[in-house]
Amino acid sequence: MTTTLQLLQQASQAVACLQSCSDSLIQQILNDTALALLANMESILKANEEDLSRMDTSNPKYDRQKLTESRLRGIAEDMQNVSALPSPLGKTYSETIRPNGMTIRKISVPFGVIGVIYEARPNVTCDVFSLCLKSGNVCVLKGGSDADCSNRALVRIIHQVLEKYQLNPALCTLLPPDREATAELLNAVGLVDLVIPRGSSSLIQYVRDHARIPVIETGAGICHTYFDIAGNKEKGQAIINNAKTRRVSVCNALDCLLIHDQRLADLPYLCQLLSQHQVIIYADEPAFKALQGNYPPDLLQQATEESYGTEFLDYKMSIRTVPSLEEALRHIARYSSKHSECIITEDKQNEDIFLQKVDAACVYANVSTAFTDGAQFGFGAEIGISTQKMHARGPMALPELTTYKYIITGNGQTRS
Amino acid sequence: MTTTLQLLQQASQAVACLQSCSDSLIQQILNDTALALLANMESILKANEEDLSRMDTSNPKYDRQKLTESRLRGIAEDMQNVSALPSPLGKTYSETIRPNGMTIRKISVPFGVIGVIYEARPNVTCDVFSLCLKSGNVCVLKGGSDADCSNRALVRIIHQVLEKYQLNPALCTLLPPDREATAELLNAVGLVDLVIPRGSSSLIQYVRDHARIPVIETGAGICHTYFDIAGNKEKGQAIINNAKTRRVSVCNALDCLLIHDQRLADLPYLCQLLSQHQVIIYADEPAFKALQGNYPPDLLQQATEESYGTEFLDYKMSIRTVPSLEEALRHIARYSSKHSECIITEDKQNEDIFLQKVDAACVYANVSTAFTDGAQFGFGAEIGISTQKMHARGPMALPELTTYKYIITGNGQTRS
Repeated sequence: MTTTLQLLQQASQAVACLQSCSDSLIQQILNDTALALLANMESILKANEEDLSRMDTSNPKYDRQKLTESRLRGIAEDMQNVSALPSPLGKTYSETIRPNGMTIRKISVPFGVIGVIYEARPNVTCDVFSLCLKSGNVCVLKGGSDADCSNRALVRIIHQVLEKYQLNPALCTLLPPDREATAELLNAVGLVDLVIPRGSSSLIQYVRDHARIPVIETGAGICHTYFDIAGNKEKGQAIINNAKTRRVSVCNALDCLLIHDQRLADLPYLCQLLSQHQVIIYADEPAFKALQGNYPPDLLQQATEESYGTEFLDYKMSIRTVPSLEEALRHIARYSSKHSECIITEDKQNEDIFLQKVDAACVYANVSTAFTDGAQFGFGAEIGISTQKMHARGPMALPELTTYKYIITGNGQTRS
Repeated sequence: MTTTLQLLQQASQAVACLQSCSDSLIQQILNDTALALLANMESILKANEEDLSRMDTSNPKYDRQKLTESRLRGIAEDMQNVSALPSPLGKTYSETIRPNGMTIRKISVPFGVIGVIYEARPNVTCDVFSLCLKSGNVCVLKGGSDADCSNRALVRIIHQVLEKYQLNPALCTLLPPDREATAELLNAVGLVDLVIPRGSSSLIQYVRDHARIPVIETGAGICHTYFDIAGNKEKGQAIINNAKTRRVSVCNALDCLLIHDQRLADLPYLCQLLSQHQVIIYADEPAFKALQGNYPPDLLQQATEESYGTEFLDYKMSIRTVPSLEEALRHIARYSSKHSECIITEDKQNEDIFLQKVDAACVYANVSTAFTDGAQFGFGAEIGISTQKMHARGPMALPELTTYKYIITGNGQTRS
């Protein structure tokens, strides 16, 4: 039985074999893996059924966990798409010749070993492998125990392809699905270069509290949309409805609508489409009055202090009335998780102030926050949405999975 | 008495007042502070004497801690130089218009609050303040207790200048010089965006083990120079001597010379200048034999396993003999701290393999590793040398003190 530490050491040793992989070889491997996933559909679906049989069908995880023929086709297609993206490696960021004649080049290189901790979503296993391999990195996967059979089936096929190319299977290392493995991964100083937790806020907090290796946090989004005194109500209605109801379980879904008090008369119109989705509104006093009689009474409640700064991940939204743009900015600065924030306004000056002053990964003017997503940004793929400021912010794709090094060449220069 | 937590909260609140500071105002403040340091030289030197009086003059920290009239002039000049550098803020990294008509711009913005933990070097207080202010960041300074009087005197003058401009003095926040303040800083989730430890490896390890906020590690350098089968011995002698003896206390000083076994006959020549600096050599068997009789016997010792992977920070160096470039690469992969690594060779193919395969912040060919330094790289300033891969690698200057945000503008776009 290989221990987690041994698995991590093997992953670290596998870095060397990636140094001689060209991008065209990487493309071949990814395309072959995509085909192998389709060819082995039956065994993968069988393993997935084993996972599902241990789970209550009413569990909200059940659907995310479930693989079908068409979902597997989608996973294989995503892998082929990543394969075809431009390589993020070997990019020259800068090149300077210093007065003493030495040349300094700054070029993009892989991190080395990237660990990803995630929950019961077997598609993530394939996404992470393809994004890491495309960016020249070894991946260490720590999936949820609920999806362990599915993950093992998927990784078995990846390993078969790697072995066909005589590559080290530790390029894609799956850890045991227990907490001890997570703890060991978070302590793997010198073996793992970066860890990305993907999942619930409790997972992310656990990682933040225990990691001794660098972390990129993803996930939690407490998102606001501010309807300004100069907001267009048609755009407002469409954006609010889209940001709140398109998918309530995503981190960039709308949590709190801020409305300028001089536009309270338009609030029933702005919220009109929400009632069709049975969105429960927690409104402050002025907003509650404006909505009373204009919104289904069973869906309308008084806001409490807990209504603000909450990520609902549900058909729920709070509303706060503000007397000015400045007060909206103060509310956002206090309650936002710095993920995705939006202003609806036709006033260019207010728009500029909002875009400049709001500190968030993605700041929107007259566009739904539903667009915070690697594919929507044109990145072609995404490994997660960073909610921290270091290294990567917002949607992270291939370039964010690289670091850089300085290469200095000369003919004997010494420093005086 | 203000608690550390209150100081951190004040620093976090001070972020807002920087949003309205133009670069020309920042330049004025830095230039005024430089003048104020010179005008208050007497009180600063007096405070510094108080610190020095508590310290043994034989303590190696004594000299780093000591301020003089000329050193203060240097500190003021550095501040004026940082003031004159181009602002790293508001830089547009990319701008795309998506098929639905929305525009996505990626622009550089400040982190917010940057904490720096350092030891007894009062000049760092002024460096960190000027680099953080220039990049739009609030700085939280946690200096060593040995330098507390000096630090307080310097920060008092900085505060006087900030108050003259009616700016929040918490823009430059000095924490109490105790371990409790360090612990509180490392736990300041939501208040401090980034912490940079500068100092001994025990300090850096403490930070790595205890931080719950993002960290950029700096400092430890276990650096190798490989003299290849095709190395030029004149360049080799000069580079080895320079990398080892220019300043032994710096992180990019040479620790271990790797030599191709077919060039052992040149080893006495390569090490010739080292004996003038009384460099103690720890040589493996073949290198020991090659040097015996050609190097002062009192400075020549047999290498042990501890001779490798050690950062000497002293007039000491180890030598290992290798049969091939591949073996040199393996040694470096095993023992290097991925800081600064060098090859000396006239063989272009070996050079290319080395530059590609060595995983380090700075990889050199035929240039002394002594150049790993922000000023030498032409950055104009430096806040430290990162030894990790996330966010920043190698010398860090103003651009590394910024993050970015995405600004998305449109006319009502929603996602289908």
